[in-house]
Amino acid sequence: MVAIPVSSSLPALASWTQALAPSAIQDLLVRASHPSITSFALGLPAPELFPAAAIQDALTGVFAQSGQTLQYGPPLGALKRDIVGLMARRGVACTEQQIVLTTGAQQGLSLLARLLINPGQQVMIEQLAYSGFRQILDQFEPQLLRIPCSPEHGMDLHVLEQMLAGGVRPALIYTVSEGHNPLGISMSADRRMRLVELAQAYKVPIIEDDPYGLLNYDTAALPALRAHSADWVYYVGSFSKILAPAVRVGWLVVPEVLVAKLEVIKESTDLNTASLGQRVVAAYLSTGVLDEHVQVLRQTYRERRDAMVHALHHSVGERARWCVPTSGMFIWLELARQHDTTALLQRAIDHERIAFLPGRAFAAPDDERAARSMRLNFSHVPPESIRAGIGRLGALLAYADAAGTVSEGEHA
Amino acid sequence: MVAIPVSSSLPALASWTQALAPSAIQDLLVRASHPSITSFALGLPAPELFPAAAIQDALTGVFAQSGQTLQYGPPLGALKRDIVGLMARRGVACTEQQIVLTTGAQQGLSLLARLLINPGQQVMIEQLAYSGFRQILDQFEPQLLRIPCSPEHGMDLHVLEQMLAGGVRPALIYTVSEGHNPLGISMSADRRMRLVELAQAYKVPIIEDDPYGLLNYDTAALPALRAHSADWVYYVGSFSKILAPAVRVGWLVVPEVLVAKLEVIKESTDLNTASLGQRVVAAYLSTGVLDEHVQVLRQTYRERRDAMVHALHHSVGERARWCVPTSGMFIWLELARQHDTTALLQRAIDHERIAFLPGRAFAAPDDERAARSMRLNFSHVPPESIRAGIGRLGALLAYADAAGTVSEGEHA
Repeated sequence: MVAIPVSSSLPALASWTQALAPSAIQDLLVRASHPSITSFALGLPAPELFPAAAIQDALTGVFAQSGQTLQYGPPLGALKRDIVGLMARRGVACTEQQIVLTTGAQQGLSLLARLLINPGQQVMIEQLAYSGFRQILDQFEPQLLRIPCSPEHGMDLHVLEQMLAGGVRPALIYTVSEGHNPLGISMSADRRMRLVELAQAYKVPIIEDDPYGLLNYDTAALPALRAHSADWVYYVGSFSKILAPAVRVGWLVVPEVLVAKLEVIKESTDLNTASLGQRVVAAYLSTGVLDEHVQVLRQTYRERRDAMVHALHHSVGERARWCVPTSGMFIWLELARQHDTTALLQRAIDHERIAFLPGRAFAAPDDERAARSMRLNFSHVPPESIRAGIGRLGALLAYADAAGTVSEGEHA
Repeated sequence: MVAIPVSSSLPALASWTQALAPSAIQDLLVRASHPSITSFALGLPAPELFPAAAIQDALTGVFAQSGQTLQYGPPLGALKRDIVGLMARRGVACTEQQIVLTTGAQQGLSLLARLLINPGQQVMIEQLAYSGFRQILDQFEPQLLRIPCSPEHGMDLHVLEQMLAGGVRPALIYTVSEGHNPLGISMSADRRMRLVELAQAYKVPIIEDDPYGLLNYDTAALPALRAHSADWVYYVGSFSKILAPAVRVGWLVVPEVLVAKLEVIKESTDLNTASLGQRVVAAYLSTGVLDEHVQVLRQTYRERRDAMVHALHHSVGERARWCVPTSGMFIWLELARQHDTTALLQRAIDHERIAFLPGRAFAAPDDERAARSMRLNFSHVPPESIRAGIGRLGALLAYADAAGTVSEGEHA
C-alpha cells in the first residue's frame, strides 16, 4: 500500500487515516471491470438473475400505496416480521425486537464494530478473512489476533481456545460460518457448537457474517451459529445476495437490549435505511416468490460451481489445490508453487483477460501461503465463460511455472 | 438522557457507548408522528411535493437502460457531472474529481468526521448546532468548543477569532451558512468572507452543511462558503430536501487529494451508495425539470413560512421572539419567559396535538437560553395546519405563562 500524498494546504487528518489508501489491487480491479475481461474477482451475483420485473412491480406498488415512500422513514415493522421468517430458515428463532435494519450487511458490520471496539483493543479474525471487515477495523487501530485457519476446516479452534484460556479477551470474534469468504467452506456441526461454547464460556461475542446462508448447493445448510446462542452470537444478514445489492438492505439480529444503542449509532451514520429500499423489499417478500427465486439461484450457482470445479481439474490440475464449496460464491485456490498471485494478476488481466482476487487481500502482509493463493468467484459469469476463463487461468499458471520471473521459489 | 441498562450476559461495549441512549425526546417524537398531531418538529419536506411520477418514470428508464441497475455499483460519473452543475448555482466552481457521492448528507458528515477527528480532539460547533452532527461526534469523545451564537447573526466570529488567535486548533469548524439549523438564519456576505479568512489563516477546515442552499425565498442566496475557499471549506450537499429523502443520495465537495481516502472510508461503511438511487437521481436530473421543481418548492415553502410568521404574530405575539428566515425550513422561537420547552413538549402533544423540537436538543445541557427556545419547521404541513397549529401553540404558551408549574422563573 502506498499512502496518498497530502499537500500542506490540508489540515492534519485523523492519525489512523495517514496509512489509508486504496488497496494496491484497486486499480487493477477497475481495469478488470472492463467488459472484455472475464472477472472471477468480486463477490457479485449473476445480474441476469436479478428479479428486475418483480422488483419493478414492487416499486410500482409502494408508490401507489403511500405518499410516504419518498420521505424519511423509520424501520419498517413489516420488513422485520419478514426477516424473523427468513431467520427461521437459518434455524434461528428470534423476534422483531432483536432486529436492526441496516443499509446492507457492510453497514451492519460497521455498526457492530463501533458498538464493541475500543481503539487499540484486541479483535479476533481468521488468518484469511473478508477484507471489508478488516477495512472497518482500521479506524480502531486494533491489535489483530489472526487465528490460523485451514482451507479445509476453517478456524483452528484449538488455537482459539488456548488464547482465550490464556486470558486473551478480544472485543469480538469475526467469522463466516456458511460459504466462508474467502475460503468457500462451511463449518461442520461439531465445530459450530464448539465455537459458540467457547464464546459463551469466555464471554466474547461472535459476529456471524451470513450473506450466503441461503445459497447452499448440496444438502441443506446447517443452522447458523446464532441458532446456538442468542446472547453471544450477533448475526449479520443481507438481501444483496438473495435479492439485489442495489436495494442496500441488510439486518442485524442482536440481544434486544443492544437494539436501542445500535439504532442511535445507525442514525448518526445515515439517518435511516432508505424507506424506498425497505418498502420495495417488503413488497417483494409479500408476494411469496423469494423461495422460488432462491431455488433458481441455487440451481444456477450449483451449475457454475460444478463448471468451475470441472474446469479447474481439466485446466489447472496439479498446479493448485482447492476444496469444493457447498455454499456461497467462492473457491479458494492455493498454488502448488510459490508464485505471488498479486504479481500474476497484472499478467492475468493484460494477457489472459481474466481477473481474480489475490490471497494477500485477505491476509496479513507476511502470509506466504496466502500470497500464493487466490479467491475465485463462480456466481457472476455463465458456465461457458467460466470454462474459457479457467482455461486461460491454466495457461497463466503454466506460463508462471515455466518462467522464473514471477516465481519466488518452490514449496512442497 | 438515561443510559440504556445492559445485562451481565453482554460483553463490555466500547466505552463511548456507555452513555449512548435515544435522546430524551425520542419517545415523544415517536408519539408526535401520529397523524392526529400537527408536527413542526422534524425537518421534513412536504410529501405532496415529491415528484413521485417523475421519479417513477426515472426508475422505469433506468431499469430499461441497464441490467446493472440492481448490481453493486461504483460512483456514477454522470451524477458527478450533474452535481458540478448544481454547485455552480451555489456560486461554487468545482470538478468531478472533487466530488464524493454519499448515502445522504448525514453519511457525508460522518465520513468527514472520521477523516478529520482524532479521539479526544477539540471540535468547534456553534452554541446551537444540528443535533445529528453532535451525535456523529459522540464516538470521538471530543472536547466540544461551542462558539456563542445569536439568533439574529449566528456564530460570534470575535470569539472564534480570539480562540484561534489564542492557539486553539480544533479538528474542524462546523456550520450551516444558509438556512441555519436550528436558527433558520443565513450568514451575511461579510461574515462569510471573515469566517473563511479565519479558517484559511489558522488552517482549520470548515465543514459547510448545505442541505437548504437552493431553498431560498426572498432574494437569491449568497454563494456558499465553499465559493471562497476550495482548500479550507469542505462542502456537504444533499438531494433529500430538493428531491426526496428516500433516494438517500448526497455528496461532498473536498480537495481532490482527499477523495481517495474518503472513498475507502465510505467503502468500509456501506460499500457503495445504492446504484439504484444514483441512477434514479441522474435520470431525473437528465430530464432538466429540477429547476422548475425547486421553483415550486420555493413558492410553497415561502407561503408556509409567511403563514407561520403571520400566525406567530397573531397567536404568540409578545410571548416569544423570532427572526424571519430567508432560506431553509426552520424558525427559531425564543420564549420571553423561562419555560422549559422540553417540559412543554409533553403538554403540547397531549393537550394541543402539536409538536416542536425543544431547544435543548441543539445545545449544551446548561444552556438556559436554549432551554426556553424551540425549533419550528414550516415546510412539512400546509398553511391551514400551520395557522391552526400555531394557534394551539399560542394557547400552550398562554397556559404556561398563567400556570406556575412549568415556569422556572422569568427573564427579560
